[in-house]
Amino acid sequence: MRITLLAGGIGAARFLRGLLADSPDAEVTVIGNTGDDLTLYGLQVSPDLDTVMYTLGGGNDEAKGWGRAEETWNALAEIQAYDATASWFGLGDRDIGTHLVRTAMLDDGHTLSEVTATLTARWNLPVRLVPMTDHRVETHVTVEDPDAPEGRRRLHFQEYWVRHHASLPVIDIEVEGIAESTPAPGVLEAISEADLILLPPSNPVVSIGPILAVPGVRDAVLASPAPVVGLSPIVGGAPVRGMADKLLPAIGVDTSAAGVALHFGARSSGGLLDAWLVDERDADAVPRIEEAGIAARAVPLMMTDVPAVAEMARVALDLADAVRR
Amino acid sequence: MRITLLAGGIGAARFLRGLLADSPDAEVTVIGNTGDDLTLYGLQVSPDLDTVMYTLGGGNDEAKGWGRAEETWNALAEIQAYDATASWFGLGDRDIGTHLVRTAMLDDGHTLSEVTATLTARWNLPVRLVPMTDHRVETHVTVEDPDAPEGRRRLHFQEYWVRHHASLPVIDIEVEGIAESTPAPGVLEAISEADLILLPPSNPVVSIGPILAVPGVRDAVLASPAPVVGLSPIVGGAPVRGMADKLLPAIGVDTSAAGVALHFGARSSGGLLDAWLVDERDADAVPRIEEAGIAARAVPLMMTDVPAVAEMARVALDLADAVRR
Repeated sequence: MRITLLAGGIGAARFLRGLLADSPDAEVTVIGNTGDDLTLYGLQVSPDLDTVMYTLGGGNDEAKGWGRAEETWNALAEIQAYDATASWFGLGDRDIGTHLVRTAMLDDGHTLSEVTATLTARWNLPVRLVPMTDHRVETHVTVEDPDAPEGRRRLHFQEYWVRHHASLPVIDIEVEGIAESTPAPGVLEAISEADLILLPPSNPVVSIGPILAVPGVRDAVLASPAPVVGLSPIVGGAPVRGMADKLLPAIGVDTSAAGVALHFGARSSGGLLDAWLVDERDADAVPRIEEAGIAARAVPLMMTDVPAVAEMARVALDLADAVRR
Repeated sequence: MRITLLAGGIGAARFLRGLLADSPDAEVTVIGNTGDDLTLYGLQVSPDLDTVMYTLGGGNDEAKGWGRAEETWNALAEIQAYDATASWFGLGDRDIGTHLVRTAMLDDGHTLSEVTATLTARWNLPVRLVPMTDHRVETHVTVEDPDAPEGRRRLHFQEYWVRHHASLPVIDIEVEGIAESTPAPGVLEAISEADLILLPPSNPVVSIGPILAVPGVRDAVLASPAPVVGLSPIVGGAPVRGMADKLLPAIGVDTSAAGVALHFGARSSGGLLDAWLVDERDADAVPRIEEAGIAARAVPLMMTDVPAVAEMARVALDLADAVRR
């Protein structure tokens, strides 16, 4: 079975581990979000690709969810010694090794796809990880700032997210360069040839949103014969992880399991979803989602350990079979 | 007293420590060689500037002579895990912190002089360290290689030096970009306004040579009223440190204390030197050097500890007074 995922970072990586435990023989392609890529001290950083790679490669920091196990932080300590104000992003020494290889390969003219293939080869990934695009795109957020001209300020998404902990009121979110981007090699094929398309519990605004916004990707999902099944990243009215609740209102979406489902929309009415899993705490949302034309089921969605996630994946696959046309 | 040095890396850094111990009140300007700067995985590395900075700032690895104390090597270990063939340069994690700040500032449009001022501010250097030029120059070496087209191959000096341990026969050495370079701000002033110009025991070919080759620098030294006193980097027919013996023959210079003195030449006959210190083992070279018009003295030149170097610096200053015009 060929399964294709549109994936963000930590949520997607943890879901993938469960999916692979449940379906070890599935041929899995992960289309990774690069919308929150950034350049930091000249380093080309791809946070979501790396989180998936480290997690599935067994090199991740399990407690933090991002970054490397057995990490040291000496380069960052030095940067802070030179400039205490400038180093808000978590750049571990081992992680920097990855960024240096990526940066050098990109400087040498390789595409991000080629770089990603080289990097993942070292980690012997049980999936194929491809970036959504080889074009450089960057998510910027416009926030309220009374001290700035016109009361607003524009900053890189990662700066908003990591440095300011999503604490600034968001006016607008824009993925710069997305309109001119094209899908990376293999992306459209992985969608059109899939037996199942999964939306893991990733941030709908800044993880799955940018992937769907690469010209051609949304149309490919709509045209694919494969069922599209998603898992709610919102449980009990709050994100399981991260700060999606700060972003959903900015795009006019209710921070709820049903809100996100309706945002993606039912396939029967021109949207993306055939089916949607919500947490058991959100069982009362199921009728409303089904009414909109999306098959829904309430199950435990907390990714406490791999067996729990495998069970979640199993339900998603069962639901896919139920809605398969 | 204003003292200006034309400085390479380890030899110059250790000499400076002794000079400052002997003359703590001297106003010292160090014109640093950038001829062996390189770009490595996108990082802008200035080995000689950093060696002087770390050594005088108390952050150097005393045993190795280059790099940082209490260094870790995790980024490099990762790079090696991705590509075992590619990581021949010693990039420590703390050292990478310096390179990241330098790279980011250069990318932002700052000059290397500005970067160096920012970096050295953190280390509270007891000297002013200025790069020889803000232009990008790079030393390349042409070596014999029977497997290469026409039997020769061109590589970056650092690759020749660090990766191949200077083991390949050298045909030619070229500092790319040097003819188009200009002295960095303050360089010519530091030479013309000096009370004393010192050539520390640095590599004459790839450390002091590139500084003198920046258009205007040699002429400024020749025109300066300050005495020019050098210390031989060759002791007993071999370099005290490094592999200058592999490079001197390539520019037609005898690997000896007298050979290097005559290469720099006597001021009285259009050369650079007023005086030259050789090691006591090379005392028999003194008459030949003096015959050429360069005051010479034989003293212990091994930089075993700071007091020994301070004594060496004291003799250089005394000799400068003796030859002062």
